[in-house]
Amino acid sequence: MEPAAHHFVAGERIAGQGPFFHAVDAATGKDLEPAYPSADRALVDRAVAAAAAAFVVYRHVDAPTRARFLRRVAERFEERVDDLAERMPRETGLGEPRVRGEAARTAFQFRMFADLVETDAWRDPRHDVGDPAREPNPKPDVRSLETALGPVAVFGPSNFPLAYGVAGGDTASALAAGCPVIVKAHPAHPGVSEIVGEAVAGAVADEGLPGGVFSLLFDAGLDAGERLVTHPDVRAVGFTGSRGGGRALMDLAAGRPEPIPVYTEMSSVNPVFVLPGALAARGPDIAGAIHASMTAGLGQMCTCPGLVFLVEGNGFDAFRARLAELVDTTAPGDMLTPGIHDAFEKGTSFLGEHTERVGGSDSGSGPASVGASAFATTARAILENPGLTDEVFGPCTLVIRCASVEEMVETARTLEGQLTGTIHADAADTKAACAVLEVLETKVGRIVWNGVPTGVEVGPAMVHGGPYPATSDGRTTAVGTRAIHRFTRLVAYQDLPEALLPAVLRG
Amino acid sequence: MEPAAHHFVAGERIAGQGPFFHAVDAATGKDLEPAYPSADRALVDRAVAAAAAAFVVYRHVDAPTRARFLRRVAERFEERVDDLAERMPRETGLGEPRVRGEAARTAFQFRMFADLVETDAWRDPRHDVGDPAREPNPKPDVRSLETALGPVAVFGPSNFPLAYGVAGGDTASALAAGCPVIVKAHPAHPGVSEIVGEAVAGAVADEGLPGGVFSLLFDAGLDAGERLVTHPDVRAVGFTGSRGGGRALMDLAAGRPEPIPVYTEMSSVNPVFVLPGALAARGPDIAGAIHASMTAGLGQMCTCPGLVFLVEGNGFDAFRARLAELVDTTAPGDMLTPGIHDAFEKGTSFLGEHTERVGGSDSGSGPASVGASAFATTARAILENPGLTDEVFGPCTLVIRCASVEEMVETARTLEGQLTGTIHADAADTKAACAVLEVLETKVGRIVWNGVPTGVEVGPAMVHGGPYPATSDGRTTAVGTRAIHRFTRLVAYQDLPEALLPAVLRG
Repeated sequence: MEPAAHHFVAGERIAGQGPFFHAVDAATGKDLEPAYPSADRALVDRAVAAAAAAFVVYRHVDAPTRARFLRRVAERFEERVDDLAERMPRETGLGEPRVRGEAARTAFQFRMFADLVETDAWRDPRHDVGDPAREPNPKPDVRSLETALGPVAVFGPSNFPLAYGVAGGDTASALAAGCPVIVKAHPAHPGVSEIVGEAVAGAVADEGLPGGVFSLLFDAGLDAGERLVTHPDVRAVGFTGSRGGGRALMDLAAGRPEPIPVYTEMSSVNPVFVLPGALAARGPDIAGAIHASMTAGLGQMCTCPGLVFLVEGNGFDAFRARLAELVDTTAPGDMLTPGIHDAFEKGTSFLGEHTERVGGSDSGSGPASVGASAFATTARAILENPGLTDEVFGPCTLVIRCASVEEMVETARTLEGQLTGTIHADAADTKAACAVLEVLETKVGRIVWNGVPTGVEVGPAMVHGGPYPATSDGRTTAVGTRAIHRFTRLVAYQDLPEALLPAVLRG
Repeated sequence: MEPAAHHFVAGERIAGQGPFFHAVDAATGKDLEPAYPSADRALVDRAVAAAAAAFVVYRHVDAPTRARFLRRVAERFEERVDDLAERMPRETGLGEPRVRGEAARTAFQFRMFADLVETDAWRDPRHDVGDPAREPNPKPDVRSLETALGPVAVFGPSNFPLAYGVAGGDTASALAAGCPVIVKAHPAHPGVSEIVGEAVAGAVADEGLPGGVFSLLFDAGLDAGERLVTHPDVRAVGFTGSRGGGRALMDLAAGRPEPIPVYTEMSSVNPVFVLPGALAARGPDIAGAIHASMTAGLGQMCTCPGLVFLVEGNGFDAFRARLAELVDTTAPGDMLTPGIHDAFEKGTSFLGEHTERVGGSDSGSGPASVGASAFATTARAILENPGLTDEVFGPCTLVIRCASVEEMVETARTLEGQLTGTIHADAADTKAACAVLEVLETKVGRIVWNGVPTGVEVGPAMVHGGPYPATSDGRTTAVGTRAIHRFTRLVAYQDLPEALLPAVLRG
């Protein structure tokens, strides 16, 4: 199916005005047809007004209907995976196996939320039974639950066009909570966004829900997004992307006359701590696992292991030699966008100037092609120049030599908030592991043991979050069933007649 | 016991430096001895450093120990109620029965949280069991729970020196979550703050906890509070007070290099909707209930009913006449502070100029004395001048005549976020009640039926919150057991050995 390059506003396709923009072919650097329009302020306002109107209906939709709708989104989405497998590699440089893998995860997320909202238990219904005879004052009957917050604006990232995109985790959890969603498409993959948008809008129509439950807007620049985040009827924002972009939205939302919650998932360097016993016993194997993780998706994952802490000593040289051998022979790949390519070149140049080169592979012929890189430095250097630990988004890692476990722990304490922290340890490392664990428990959203941070398993217990700047709000998670609570607020009912209570609070 | 007028920093009494300030005797307007010091930046930093150090220990304190500590706070606090009954009326103008009632609630809150944290169930422990044999990738074992956020700064209000003060709901819920607390005492009642601070610090010592679990600082001005909210090691803020003060703290926290959550409870006018059937059947009784609620605590409650919507018609005149009779004969009282007194005079003057006077009583002889006031206007006037609905903190209410239920609902839609909304309805009013309910469900934290908004029952189902500007964060509640989740974040453990997991996640 050829893309129409139209916005979706409340069930209608809108051709839209300029400025027009194109996706860029990751392999050639050339524009991909068609040209996509930009939503002006009036169109943003129209989408939000439709969302606000839809909210009045959608927030009351009963649990089985909402669950059926979410499953229908998954089905509609799955019908389009072949189209995505054709379009997404061109817009992103990501290969077809990745498209199909990410698509499966995306559909799974909708079904997980469908299962969750099949009943209203997730809304935490509570009842404090009243006592009219209590002295000195009667005790009121108080019932309460979580209720949907209102229209939510979603901004997906360039690096996960499906699982965090138009029908990604933010959209799924907001729709599950009972909130209409307005997605601002990432300009790097408008074709993918349009295909997915068709699927979601189709499911809205299939279930006879108000069209305003879902809208999708394109924009070449920042204006539509800024209008969305500052619109009085938008009640929350979900964003996955860069630290600069995320912080800008946080500041916009905090500066509103009526501030709203913003859930941004931004930067993380996902430190790995290889403890002495593990390093001595299996240094080269750990190097292999880290290499596979740092090059997965060409390193363009928010959980890419960008820092590896090791203590000098037995196994260190073997680890480094194996990592060098692997990065030296890593096949090049095309990065998601020209901008990400340029930032990667800049980041690796900076590390090249300020640290030792461990190894690296050449880029390919395409304009956005890069090879892998590894660098090394000392913990002391990190303590003196914390900028060395800034995220370099792409297939790159920085090995940090520590003089001792104590120095490793001390350096870990200076790190910013992270999505993940990984510990490689053997039985002899337990004491050191406890010291690292103590730091990570205050610093990261997920602690991984003898594994790699990439590959975020979707399930009720998963936490994909972490203190700033990993996210704007380390209290919550963007993955897993708990994500639904980001889009709710609490309401209590005091002494209301049964018939006027929400169904789940009756009885 | 004579107050020493010392700060409490991590178990030590610190005499402190100037500028010195006094509480003001509510009845006479004269300074009350002793003079209290102001914490300078170095002292704030010392308290926060002690809190950060205490956090390392306190967050690991096991559930039974933490529960015992919270109960010990309640006991230590109760030992000081006679001292409070002596000091608090002078500092606040609130009478002894109020002191004892609020004290009982304060102690109850600590025991409620003690019961809650007796086990770790409140931490929402989860376990997604792994499957090493899963294809194509092994499924990791993921467990997760809520964990304490870190040191919390608490700012209590002038109007609830006990239940929302030094040992109020914010302090109780933060301590229950495992967070050390640094309280900035409200300058209107430093003597009360010191007595309560002694109780909390005593309980910390009794249980052998690190002194940094609790500190209490005084300040004549804003500097200590600003430093607290911007200190890198403070992880969250709880505030109850004015809209201006709350918004200033929100903006400070949002502007930090690393923004942190701020829970401010600010202004609310708590609209009451009297529907036609109820008005006709029992208008004078409803007027009596509203009068009792609007004058409770001299109207200085965050849930004081400041707006009363009625539809012109049967019962309206009787309602108004009864309300006039009651406010005309209301005994005057001394307001909490000279500043609150001046703001009340200004607010009632403004209403006097722009609305009709229903009735009112004279103030007494004291400098902070005021009588009750009631005014009336039309829904149309409100729609034209929304400033008429601004909070007038004190014993005052504004009656709003609506031409129809439709106009009542339309006007309700224009209101800002509120802590509460109250509906008075009889059987014939069901349809109108549903229309009002629909608006309130998106606008308030608690909906009250045929009752009054004052008197916030403490229990697991209570919600004391609401959309901005009622609070900074309508997702949460400041009262009830759910308040604990404001001071936690999520952490996941992937494939960790049993022995290294938090106890509640094992097995």
